Amino acid sequence: MTDLADLPATEAARRLRAGSLTAAALTEALLARIAAREPVLRAFAWHDPAQVRRAAAAADAATRAGRATGPLHGLALGVKDVLDTADMPSQYGSAAWAGYRPRADAACVALARRAGAVVIGKTVTTEFATRHPGPTGNPHHPGHTPGGSSSGSAAGAAAGFFQAGLGTQTAGSIIRPAAYCGVVGFKPSFGALHRAGMKVMSESLDTIGVIARSVGDCALFMAGATGGDYGDPAVKPGRAPRLALCLGPTADQADAATRALLERAAAAAGRAGATVTPLTLPDAVVAGLRAHPAVMLGESAQALAWELDHAAAQLSPILRENLSRGLALSPAEVAAGRAAFAAARAAMADVIAPFDAILTPSAPGEAPEGLGWTGDPAFNSLWTLLHLPCVTVPAGVGPKGLPLGVQVVAGFGGDRAALAWAEWLRQTLAG
Amino acid sequence: MTDLADLPATEAARRLRAGSLTAAALTEALLARIAAREPVLRAFAWHDPAQVRRAAAAADAATRAGRATGPLHGLALGVKDVLDTADMPSQYGSAAWAGYRPRADAACVALARRAGAVVIGKTVTTEFATRHPGPTGNPHHPGHTPGGSSSGSAAGAAAGFFQAGLGTQTAGSIIRPAAYCGVVGFKPSFGALHRAGMKVMSESLDTIGVIARSVGDCALFMAGATGGDYGDPAVKPGRAPRLALCLGPTADQADAATRALLERAAAAAGRAGATVTPLTLPDAVVAGLRAHPAVMLGESAQALAWELDHAAAQLSPILRENLSRGLALSPAEVAAGRAAFAAARAAMADVIAPFDAILTPSAPGEAPEGLGWTGDPAFNSLWTLLHLPCVTVPAGVGPKGLPLGVQVVAGFGGDRAALAWAEWLRQTLAG
Repeated sequence: MTDLADLPATEAARRLRAGSLTAAALTEALLARIAAREPVLRAFAWHDPAQVRRAAAAADAATRAGRATGPLHGLALGVKDVLDTADMPSQYGSAAWAGYRPRADAACVALARRAGAVVIGKTVTTEFATRHPGPTGNPHHPGHTPGGSSSGSAAGAAAGFFQAGLGTQTAGSIIRPAAYCGVVGFKPSFGALHRAGMKVMSESLDTIGVIARSVGDCALFMAGATGGDYGDPAVKPGRAPRLALCLGPTADQADAATRALLERAAAAAGRAGATVTPLTLPDAVVAGLRAHPAVMLGESAQALAWELDHAAAQLSPILRENLSRGLALSPAEVAAGRAAFAAARAAMADVIAPFDAILTPSAPGEAPEGLGWTGDPAFNSLWTLLHLPCVTVPAGVGPKGLPLGVQVVAGFGGDRAALAWAEWLRQTLAG
Repeated sequence: MTDLADLPATEAARRLRAGSLTAAALTEALLARIAAREPVLRAFAWHDPAQVRRAAAAADAATRAGRATGPLHGLALGVKDVLDTADMPSQYGSAAWAGYRPRADAACVALARRAGAVVIGKTVTTEFATRHPGPTGNPHHPGHTPGGSSSGSAAGAAAGFFQAGLGTQTAGSIIRPAAYCGVVGFKPSFGALHRAGMKVMSESLDTIGVIARSVGDCALFMAGATGGDYGDPAVKPGRAPRLALCLGPTADQADAATRALLERAAAAAGRAGATVTPLTLPDAVVAGLRAHPAVMLGESAQALAWELDHAAAQLSPILRENLSRGLALSPAEVAAGRAAFAAARAAMADVIAPFDAILTPSAPGEAPEGLGWTGDPAFNSLWTLLHLPCVTVPAGVGPKGLPLGVQVVAGFGGDRAALAWAEWLRQTLAG
């Protein structure tokens, strides 16, 4: 018999609706898993089993009372700790915010709860979703990083602590940790989920998304929270896709296993009927990537103005150094970076139009050893600044036996296509 | 002798630097003005004279200690109450947030304080910067609205309660109240000030700006807070501008006095050497304006998800009705609206390129009578969604003897030009 903690969210949702599963039973399975593995993995910044049991009991009471329930009814959600929760501390991975209790839920948390989700805890984020890591380990090897900044949502999703974890991405903070942990990460088109109640760093870049164990589970949570149409990735498309193969301007940062994986993925897609066209990005797109640090650091230095002036001693040295770099930029330099982003987006719209999706690495390779560094967003910053929907799907393991992922990117607003072709690719690689 | 409360910020800053004026003396003049007029005007959501005196004394102590001071040192700033302050309640114009005390300052508040500004109080906003008004009256006639949503910042700037007030604009919330109150309003290019710590409603639209008694004072505060180059509007340009005259798709909502004002302004500019070219906006720009309600309401309904689910009884009927309209929109409709915005911005870049600035109404006419309605943003929503820098300058009075303003709009990023040509126009009209 399957451990209920391993049940896909789509299947758990069916059973909850049918009455063959209670939120309490599902939650107990997750709590047992958490009790067993959390002491080593440390995915949570806040987790109170009693509070979770009360929320699950309330969900079951609503079911018994016949009160209308939403598409996420009874499913467990981990919430990255840069997103406010009215009933749990929200500490942004920073000692400067220790013990902070917001009055309100972040918009995305309130929307997920409206749809019936049970928030099972706050998941570890790096400091303000930047570089300084939290204590979380990789479920596939706790001596390796789970990636970041959405460290706890990726590790917890992989370990079966919850059906889905909310994440945020400024450079590579959803896709990279999901790949490192062998799960699915989905960064939707920019703006799909409102950032009210998020500790925003870069207004031009920060995007809220989700990490789960399947493409279908990602689609279920995004659709549940937003009411949008993310399709049903389980439905097989009637044709094979037109794919672009693009390692992009950072191609030389892919390790041998990742290069081989992309070749293998392209070949398998071709055998399955896809056209696979090598794609070189135009200068305007590459120039956008060069502007990423200026916009990220310049906007972050504004965002953390209060922390710099009132809690500088509680910021990590690496963050202080990066904020200094941000402060040294003139507003004109940051504005020029945003203009480069806009030009890159305009150029990319033409480039991507002939394709259903782009095939590209999720990360340079496996999760690095140690917990001191969450890895390089080399294969993520570009797609983030382009505002394009990105999905990473698991694709075997590398030389150290740790997960590799492959990333599928679609055109702006093509979130449904990104999810559908990512699932197509996953099945093609698995079969 | 001039009442110190009437001193331009630029002049007060000079005297403070020179040591011929103390922050304490300046503050006492403002506090006297507030004590005299606030009981009728009600511009403040929070104002504690003792707290203000302590801040002014600290500024003077810093001066005496020879500690480096910023460009806003000792100047008084009113902060619209949708912007968080760590030392004052932040209630967003809503009973749902009564008594809320954030841990941190909003980024823009922290940046202004870093530059030396003394926060003199929280200024009244309409409910979450939407339609339901606060209690503030117009300094030119307290039975008329000061406009909104930045009601208290506009009324307080006009009454001499502070040198500048921070405002925010989603449709017409800076420019319209500034015009109604006979002062200068400046909505910079989108993104000039980070919205961290602002109660954001529409991520695509909300823009932080400033209201003051002169164009130079607006430039001083924006430059002080951001470190950006907003020029010196007091320096006369070496030539006359190329102006476009554009009443836009809402031309028929301008009353007779406003139409006459625009004709007078165009004629005066022409006599002063400007070229004035009538401008009709292309369809793509007009289509952007049609999408404004969908984006504003759709995004706002996400932003206030927590309030809807936990404090609906404390929301005004008009807000609940508008949020219902927002909830009825699909994410695809909101996304289509954002796409229309992007297309409008792209089209507008070509349209505005041949001109230094656009001349357009600030509002349909004088401030409406009564405090129940803050007036129509008919002449503001377009420029807000286009993300363009806008300045309103006072331009005489209408038939009821209340102020009229005229608006100058420049191309994206042309904030310095917008301010310079607005000041040129103001002097041209005054001379």
